[in-house]
Amino acid sequence: MAVGLGPLPELLPVRGVRLASVQAGIRYKNRTDLVIMAFDAGSTVAGTFTRNAFCAAPVLIAKEHMQKTSPLAFVINTGNANAGTGEEGMAAAQASCEALATQLGCKPEEVLPFSTGVIGELLPVEPIRNALPDAVVKLSEDDWKEAAHGILTTDTLPKGASRKIKAGGGEITVTGIAKGSGMIRPDMATMLAYIATDAKVAQVSLQDCLTQAVNKSFNRITVDGDTSTNDACMLVASGASGVAIQPDSDEWQVFSDGIAEVCRELAQAIIRDGEGATKFITVAVEQGTSAQECLDVAYTIAHSPLVKTAFFASDPNWGRILAAIGRAGLPQLDIDKVSVYLNEVCIVEQGGRAAAYTEEAGQAVMDQEEITIRVLLGRGEAQDTVWTTDLSHEYVRINAEYRS
Amino acid sequence: MAVGLGPLPELLPVRGVRLASVQAGIRYKNRTDLVIMAFDAGSTVAGTFTRNAFCAAPVLIAKEHMQKTSPLAFVINTGNANAGTGEEGMAAAQASCEALATQLGCKPEEVLPFSTGVIGELLPVEPIRNALPDAVVKLSEDDWKEAAHGILTTDTLPKGASRKIKAGGGEITVTGIAKGSGMIRPDMATMLAYIATDAKVAQVSLQDCLTQAVNKSFNRITVDGDTSTNDACMLVASGASGVAIQPDSDEWQVFSDGIAEVCRELAQAIIRDGEGATKFITVAVEQGTSAQECLDVAYTIAHSPLVKTAFFASDPNWGRILAAIGRAGLPQLDIDKVSVYLNEVCIVEQGGRAAAYTEEAGQAVMDQEEITIRVLLGRGEAQDTVWTTDLSHEYVRINAEYRS
Repeated sequence: MAVGLGPLPELLPVRGVRLASVQAGIRYKNRTDLVIMAFDAGSTVAGTFTRNAFCAAPVLIAKEHMQKTSPLAFVINTGNANAGTGEEGMAAAQASCEALATQLGCKPEEVLPFSTGVIGELLPVEPIRNALPDAVVKLSEDDWKEAAHGILTTDTLPKGASRKIKAGGGEITVTGIAKGSGMIRPDMATMLAYIATDAKVAQVSLQDCLTQAVNKSFNRITVDGDTSTNDACMLVASGASGVAIQPDSDEWQVFSDGIAEVCRELAQAIIRDGEGATKFITVAVEQGTSAQECLDVAYTIAHSPLVKTAFFASDPNWGRILAAIGRAGLPQLDIDKVSVYLNEVCIVEQGGRAAAYTEEAGQAVMDQEEITIRVLLGRGEAQDTVWTTDLSHEYVRINAEYRS
Repeated sequence: MAVGLGPLPELLPVRGVRLASVQAGIRYKNRTDLVIMAFDAGSTVAGTFTRNAFCAAPVLIAKEHMQKTSPLAFVINTGNANAGTGEEGMAAAQASCEALATQLGCKPEEVLPFSTGVIGELLPVEPIRNALPDAVVKLSEDDWKEAAHGILTTDTLPKGASRKIKAGGGEITVTGIAKGSGMIRPDMATMLAYIATDAKVAQVSLQDCLTQAVNKSFNRITVDGDTSTNDACMLVASGASGVAIQPDSDEWQVFSDGIAEVCRELAQAIIRDGEGATKFITVAVEQGTSAQECLDVAYTIAHSPLVKTAFFASDPNWGRILAAIGRAGLPQLDIDKVSVYLNEVCIVEQGGRAAAYTEEAGQAVMDQEEITIRVLLGRGEAQDTVWTTDLSHEYVRINAEYRS
């Protein structure tokens, strides 16, 4: 069902960052379900985590470890989210870190744990412990492709992005992988992304860079508005290229644009592979008084079941879009100043059906797989954009039939 | 598909309030699509209207007329919402009022117009004008049942509630009808309710009474979170019983409880007949620091596609409920203090699966048609409740296949 999502592109190795993927048998046999990553000493690591108050044990442990020291490794399992598991879950996450630390000869707090899979069941540590020695032996800079597969749960396709960037008088590599299919399914909890570069970047700057990139990518996508208990996006800078990127320098913009592009590509890949998605929808809201009100409108449209089912039906139903704009809570919104476009076709002007609009023109846009809803609010200069899917029978089937 | 919604109960006539239902052929032939109501001189009228900034011409005209004078009649059509129709739509709504005023011998501003049906098409006034003379001849206090049918669009069943109340040394009658099926579908825009009593109540008090009742009934239901362009709930007090209800009196509480009960019964009937509904779900949130935060949690649960599809599948998926609570935006929510019950079965305690919980006990509740999700936040004394439906294949089918 994935919309415009092709086979995995070539994922370039990042010097100083090694990965390995193995079958630990955590929940299912005969599939890769354990991925580890290890970084050269001196690497810096940035991370963003779910804002859900109900967050999983590995998220709590990862945040705690990052406050103590700079991470040297990640241990990532699928099949079990280790969420809603209380004290025992915390102990299991900690034990996973200890097991990998023993193998790598580092401290447990230098390892961050990540889990994705079924909620509310205790993470079995023994299969992880047993599989780690093999994994550590396999660590290689060339394992990105296998890792992209290894972190998946119900995704229909692996997701990755990679590029080389010329900056600071040299060339650096950025490679990332992600998983996620419902925006976030608490069952198969959920969105994870791992991005690495061989640039040398101070941790504080790296965190700024990631926070900004995530804010315009992973924080701008929604399938169903549900936020996972396990979301995390991590950015590692190994420094192995020898190219140092200083904040407020010319190359900083080039570097952060590169990170932002990889984040956006991965985030959009999650939407393209969204549960039951038959459309990839960009909701761009312009002429607002603030970016926040543009987002309020964009998310109200993107979450409206009526808009989403209309897109599933390829129905250019401007009344549903306009009604969503009208209930987005904007103070003193003058609906008569609102225009709406589907791609280049104006469907609404002055708060009503556009005079020149024809059903045929609207239908021609709706028959496409990738559609931009562009809303002009007519009251300011701000703009913002989110990406979403339609709401299909398949979405209901997946989420009704899937038994956690 | 309606959940626990039986045939229309007996709808008692309200002295001083006459109704008529006729076939005007506004969009479809051979169905009642025009309902008029006329009240004795001296009646008071209260109303609440959609808060959607994109609101229909009849809503604008009705509000304008109510500011000028006290209404004596309503003209209500189905088949066309007269929304998104600009100046021509305003003229059409005004013309409908003028046509009925001419027939009744009152002023146009003493008539309020209401429309429900397809958005974005101009309301044809001629069929209404032609049908009104017959309608006026048919005006009767005994037409509630026909009116309950006459205001429907895609509802599968008519909705009405009626009771006698002893108050102020006499007996008064309250009867109401409503329509609505998607919480609000902008296409078939949408929720309308008309309630009448023969009590004598000052307009300001009547408005207070209605606002409070609506706030605990029609403003506490959601099918899909979408708010219509045409919503209205009207309350008429004819005074024909001779029983005067004074504010701050003993009978005031009895009277307003009666109005609130009728509103709640009608609001719940809309949910029971919600698009594709297979479950009637009460979301009761308790132990919050404020009613607003209880509502925030309740609506986050009620709007979560993951929770709604789990209920459609009769799956006691506590992880989805807990994840919705966690993302409701409550500051400093301590998830370890949260408990969740399905009817009487505790499924979550201390933020995790309840120790005594069994799948069998959860399944036994989920197999029922009417289910209460009870959330204890463990941080205060406030509580509030909303009502909603599940999200079924049928919801997607109705809203994808229905062409506005």
